[in-house]
Formats: sequence, C-alpha cells, structure tokens
Amino acid sequence: MTNVPPKEGPKVKKRLASKSLVIVNTGDGKGKSSSAFGVVVRAVAREWPVGVVQFLKSGKWQVGEEKVCRDILGVDWWAIGDGFTWDSKDINEDQAIAVSAWDQVKKIIAEDKYRLVVLDEITYPINWGWIDLDEVVSVINARPIKTNVVLTGRDAPQALIELADTVTEMRKIKHAFDNGTVAKKGIDY
Amino acid sequence: MTNVPPKEGPKVKKRLASKSLVIVNTGDGKGKSSSAFGVVVRAVAREWPVGVVQFLKSGKWQVGEEKVCRDILGVDWWAIGDGFTWDSKDINEDQAIAVSAWDQVKKIIAEDKYRLVVLDEITYPINWGWIDLDEVVSVINARPIKTNVVLTGRDAPQALIELADTVTEMRKIKHAFDNGTVAKKGIDY
Repeated sequence: MTNVPPKEGPKVKKRLASKSLVIVNTGDGKGKSSSAFGVVVRAVAREWPVGVVQFLKSGKWQVGEEKVCRDILGVDWWAIGDGFTWDSKDINEDQAIAVSAWDQVKKIIAEDKYRLVVLDEITYPINWGWIDLDEVVSVINARPIKTNVVLTGRDAPQALIELADTVTEMRKIKHAFDNGTVAKKGIDY
Repeated sequence: MTNVPPKEGPKVKKRLASKSLVIVNTGDGKGKSSSAFGVVVRAVAREWPVGVVQFLKSGKWQVGEEKVCRDILGVDWWAIGDGFTWDSKDINEDQAIAVSAWDQVKKIIAEDKYRLVVLDEITYPINWGWIDLDEVVSVINARPIKTNVVLTGRDAPQALIELADTVTEMRKIKHAFDNGTVAKKGIDY
C-alpha cells in the first residue's frame, strides 16, 4: 500500500536553532529593563558585540547598568534621553531625542555590527506617536540575520507582539513603591 | 480650636528609603533569572558585595551569567546543582544538593558579607518539599538589615509573596520554544 499514513503527523514542528530572536519585555511590573540587561550579560559571555539604546532614561538617574555595561563589559551604549517625561519641562525636546535615538538604532542595525541590540523603553515613544510603529516593524523584520533584538516598555503594541519570538508580560503583584518605599539605588537603578 | 483636623490625612504613608528589599520574580514567562542578573549588574555598579546561589542550574548548561558575574564582575557564585530535574537520573542527589545550597544561603546571610543575595530558582526545591518554607521565611525575616534578597522561580509560595516588598509575575505571552525554536546560547543561557 502506498497510502500508509506516516507514523508521526506534521503536528510537531521541527526544532531549529533560529538565527536570531526578537524579544519583547512588557507589562507594568519590575524587571523589563533588568531582564534585558541580564540578557546583555549572557551575550557578553558569548563575546557578542552588544549595543544598547535607551529611549527614556537619562544620565540624571546615573543608571548603574550603563556604568558597568559600558566600562566593564564593553557594551556600546546610547542614552540620549533627558529624563522620564513626567520630570520634563520640554516635551518637544523629549520627542526630538526619541526620534534621534531611533535614527541611531536604524544606523547600527544597518551596519550589522551587533549581535544583540537592546531598545530600552522604546514602547513609550512609539505609543506617544513619536516613532512610527510600521517603520519599527519593518526595520526589525529587515534586520541582518544574526541580529537579536530586545525591546522593553509597558503596553507593547500588538504589531510588536506579533513580530516577536518571545514576549513576556512583567505583571506587578506588588511593588515596594506602593508601600511608601522610594526607588532604591543598586536595585531599581 | 485644638481639634482642627490635620490638612493631610494619614492615608499616604511617608516614603522611607528602606534599608533593604526582598524581591520575588515568579511566573511561567522568561526573565525571572535574567532580571535578577540585571539587578546584580546594578549592585556591582554600586560596589556592593554580591552572592548568588543557584538551586537548579548546573555547570552542564555553561550558564553565561556565571562566567561574566564571577570572572568579570567579582560576584561570589555557588552553583551546586547537577541539572534540571527532568534531566536527572538521581532525584535524591538533586534533593541533597538543594539542601546543601540552602545551608550555604543560611551561612552567607548569617555572615552579613553581602548586600545582595540572589536565590536563583529556589521556589522549586521549596515547592517539592525539599527546603522548609517556614525556615526560608524566618531566615529572610531575620536577615541583616542591609541584605537585599532576590528570589526567583515559578509558583512562588504565598508566604514568600507576603514577605516580599516587590513581586513580579513574569507571564508568558509567547515564547520562541513554542514555535519550535531551541534554547539559544547568548539569549536563554
């Protein structure tokens, strides 16, 4: 009989080592950015070139990750924001900075220099309409084959979730801030 | 009048910089451990002594974090597990190892040597009944005042959630594994 059914159906896809991944960390809980920096540590362990672009956090926060990643781990880092928007007096400047951060991302992805690119807190300028979502999707879709991309921020748009290989919602069960504790050096920044 | 009500009620607690925090990263999604290692990076940036005890992951996985944290960032690291249980042929050995990992934690917390202690994947041996939950709670409650503790793993028991200052559920929206992609060096380990 030529019509014998195969022993195993096509239900289970073959597991392939993909060339690169797109990871989205979203939700209202803690750990979106710190998880991205944990992945940076892993990438550095593999001697991958790593680039980080921060869309919102500024030097004012003296972010600990930046210091260690840049100075000790050799990560290229762009932090050109001037602070979270609720601290800002000039919303237009924030917008200009987010747009220039995105221009930087397009440049470094096109150069194919990094095996890991972190777009930290990019969802906010996308959701505020400062950066075009369709362009973000097409730049990531057209990226060099080995460029892994991690995107962080609350309220990730559906198009990013569809594009991504792995999406995690960091959901706040409770947060020390709610209980009157201030943001803590060494833990939160 | 002596009975004038205060302008502001007692509803908003005074924000105090707490001496230390307990953070729990739980849920079925990606980012529980990598977020802990992002916090390790921040702590190192503050020149805090950091100790990490891994309850499950083994040398077989050649975890990238261990290499970078130990060799480059100067973190003290104990990884005495012999692999995830579903790889294991000897469940009793796993149990003995988890118990000895917990003994190590009690020792380093009592010594007051570290400002950050990470108990990576500790929820599993707790939930399997290998480590006594009440003892974990009392050791963490009685810790030195400046010792921050991060605990990771799925299904964090309620007593840990109550004990913690900050709890995040990493909820899987989608994961590359589901789509047939194998765990990826530099990203997942």
